[in-house]
Amino acid sequence: MAPKDLQRSDEHFLAGFFEPESVAIVGASNNPMRATYHLVGNLIKLGFRGRIYPVHLSEKEILGIKTFRTVKDIPETVDLAVIGVSYTATPGVLKECAEKGIKRVTLIAGGFSEAGEKGKRVQAEMARMVRENSIRAIGPNALSPINVKTGFCISFHAIDSIKPGNLSLIFQSGLYEPRSGWLLNDFNYHLNKLIDLGNKMDVNEVDALGYLVEDPETRVIGIHLESIGGDGREFLRLIRKGAAQGKRVVVLKSGKSEAGAKAALSHTGALVQGNDRVFEDAMKQCGALRARSLEDFFDLTRALERFGPLSLKGNRVFIATFPGGEGVIVTDLLEQEGLSLAETGSATLDKLRPVFPSWDIPGNPWDLGLTMQFHDPRKIYQTVIDAMIAEPNVDGLAIQMHPQSLLFPKEFMGIFTRAAQEGKPIALWLAGMESGRHENLMWLEERAVPVFPSPEKALRALAALHRFSRS
Amino acid sequence: MAPKDLQRSDEHFLAGFFEPESVAIVGASNNPMRATYHLVGNLIKLGFRGRIYPVHLSEKEILGIKTFRTVKDIPETVDLAVIGVSYTATPGVLKECAEKGIKRVTLIAGGFSEAGEKGKRVQAEMARMVRENSIRAIGPNALSPINVKTGFCISFHAIDSIKPGNLSLIFQSGLYEPRSGWLLNDFNYHLNKLIDLGNKMDVNEVDALGYLVEDPETRVIGIHLESIGGDGREFLRLIRKGAAQGKRVVVLKSGKSEAGAKAALSHTGALVQGNDRVFEDAMKQCGALRARSLEDFFDLTRALERFGPLSLKGNRVFIATFPGGEGVIVTDLLEQEGLSLAETGSATLDKLRPVFPSWDIPGNPWDLGLTMQFHDPRKIYQTVIDAMIAEPNVDGLAIQMHPQSLLFPKEFMGIFTRAAQEGKPIALWLAGMESGRHENLMWLEERAVPVFPSPEKALRALAALHRFSRS
Repeated sequence: MAPKDLQRSDEHFLAGFFEPESVAIVGASNNPMRATYHLVGNLIKLGFRGRIYPVHLSEKEILGIKTFRTVKDIPETVDLAVIGVSYTATPGVLKECAEKGIKRVTLIAGGFSEAGEKGKRVQAEMARMVRENSIRAIGPNALSPINVKTGFCISFHAIDSIKPGNLSLIFQSGLYEPRSGWLLNDFNYHLNKLIDLGNKMDVNEVDALGYLVEDPETRVIGIHLESIGGDGREFLRLIRKGAAQGKRVVVLKSGKSEAGAKAALSHTGALVQGNDRVFEDAMKQCGALRARSLEDFFDLTRALERFGPLSLKGNRVFIATFPGGEGVIVTDLLEQEGLSLAETGSATLDKLRPVFPSWDIPGNPWDLGLTMQFHDPRKIYQTVIDAMIAEPNVDGLAIQMHPQSLLFPKEFMGIFTRAAQEGKPIALWLAGMESGRHENLMWLEERAVPVFPSPEKALRALAALHRFSRS
Repeated sequence: MAPKDLQRSDEHFLAGFFEPESVAIVGASNNPMRATYHLVGNLIKLGFRGRIYPVHLSEKEILGIKTFRTVKDIPETVDLAVIGVSYTATPGVLKECAEKGIKRVTLIAGGFSEAGEKGKRVQAEMARMVRENSIRAIGPNALSPINVKTGFCISFHAIDSIKPGNLSLIFQSGLYEPRSGWLLNDFNYHLNKLIDLGNKMDVNEVDALGYLVEDPETRVIGIHLESIGGDGREFLRLIRKGAAQGKRVVVLKSGKSEAGAKAALSHTGALVQGNDRVFEDAMKQCGALRARSLEDFFDLTRALERFGPLSLKGNRVFIATFPGGEGVIVTDLLEQEGLSLAETGSATLDKLRPVFPSWDIPGNPWDLGLTMQFHDPRKIYQTVIDAMIAEPNVDGLAIQMHPQSLLFPKEFMGIFTRAAQEGKPIALWLAGMESGRHENLMWLEERAVPVFPSPEKALRALAALHRFSRS
């Protein structure tokens, strides 16, 4: 990588946050019980290839790496300083970074604009220092960033590995932090980059979005917002630009209610402005999808990443469930989500007939439970999926897996990957199962077939895919 | 138990289905790969104390129990015959049951009213046989019933144990079946009785509801319906009666959309009638809660059972989250669910001050992540929960648990049980965790503190409790 001063001028300033060649970790710790222990620990475990400079007043080394008393003692250029000291010590460290000539900092501590008049004053003072020294700063009150490809991961949690993917995330506050173990280990989240903005003293969502929209490795962008801190028009323009490039943007906007807006104010000091319905309409017009809930946000971003470049060309879905009653529920869901029940032709019905019971049944929704009383599951899944791949009136598949699927041999699981390979998105669900906990589910997710714990989530994922195919 | 002919005349006819002294299992199997293997296997494992008569044409014994060639060969009275043979053999076995004088049967096979004209004719013929012989029949197309207290459990899945509780369920089709392992083992479902009605040839939801409304061990009733097969007015009267007795009824009604209604018809042959909005209004007026989705149905019935006789006296909720941003999201959710943010008095704020950071913060929503940078988690949870128990303006608590809670010692977990003990419902959530998989979560659930995988579910549970406190 070229030294930063020789960078191409068209490189976004955030690139240096995601791909630092050298990083100072101020407030690193040798105590595994402290959250700051993982600031250095994760970099080592994840194989970060840049130079790591732990900074500590008394320790000689941290996790085997030589420490420095202050950033100013570091004998080399530092691309990025991660400031993980207390809020009282943070302005002093920032000053030292300025003196050292460091141009990028992440401020982790909270206790500033969200902490009354005094905190606001201190943050304003830091903002001035940053501006005057041409420093770019993430935070304060931000754990950030993560770049899976380079193993660069600033987190208070022990992260052993992250599955690489094409999903990049922007958070206003560390919503993902207490979930990071679940998201990255159990949930089959395939991440590319993550930035947490905290109080947005300098870097804001417009900067972050501008960078990710141009990032070739980012295909899905998830954004959590309480307020728009930067230029609202530019923010919308960037979402439109991303959509035009085929990037899928999912937005979770909180602070919708009056009480929620007040809570947002007390938490990051951000004033939530504007009418929520105006925001909703703006998202639609720009081609972004608004997540309904926190769970929805994580479900949809995961699913859209796994679906990859696949799209749902029309809204006609084939359904297969174990209890027939579930087929009825899922048919209701289809309409709620703006999808429809595919009408399969007589040629398809003929293909399905070998796995009928001894009487005639409808082709869609398909009653797996019934047909499995008479035929081998392997034969049924294969027959049904083959028929639906060939059926021109079917755009996507929504299929319930049986709990015993967890015991199926992998060559059998391959049946489920065929639909996606043939260009037809498939959303599977298996009640009560966290995707990723079981070998068979991980196997499917690695092959870009997402598995959900409920039909509601599976259908919502297909609906999102359809939503984006039209925009 | 008195012989059935000496039963008190006021006993509901379904009692004999849930507490048979002797049961014939027709179509039992010695082959562990067959679903019918578990019909007898579960009864043995769950310690069913009645007499079991497996019926098989060729096997001498099944799982160590002597078999009979036909029900007619059984030398004693049979309270209930479970007919688990194929749909072609079912009418013949039913005839033999009639000849033997058996008065209660469960018909498992499908292939009748849902399977075209021929199936309809055969079902009508069976219905006639049942009527003429004063037999009461569950099904066909029904796996049923389960009575946890007596270890009586008719299921195609291996059930090793069921946590006893006060939740009873009525299903129109076996929605729970592919989920039974998850519901009963991983989800902390505390069950009392379960009845699956299938095609409702004889026993219908009005019968089932009439029985459960009078059942002293049933406190929460969950009903899944596609159609109302019995007397609609009586059904609504029974729900009102249950509500008046403090029973909480949750209804999942599918077949809402036109396509869904058509799917219901093909699946159980039931014609879904009437306007969905009329049904919605009727449920509200009767004091029942309508589940929004399959997931919602299982979440709410579980939560209401765990909350026990507790109610949410007002709608004022205290919130504590790890990321402050989650507090904003949950505050929005409160309004959506008809709850409100409790306004805590200055006396409460004074009690909380010892776990503040060095600046003033709001009491509600409470920023756990922030305060834990400065104080011991044990002290914070204890201070906050004690203060909220004493605060007269707080009716219930919604608190996010940290993933590390799974490692807490049990005496620490006891902090979370105190609120419920003091009459204030508490709903906890822990992102991405199936409740029941982890020792600490099971410990809480056993002490009637439900834990959810998302704030949406936790808030929805509190809202349901509030809904019922007013009805």
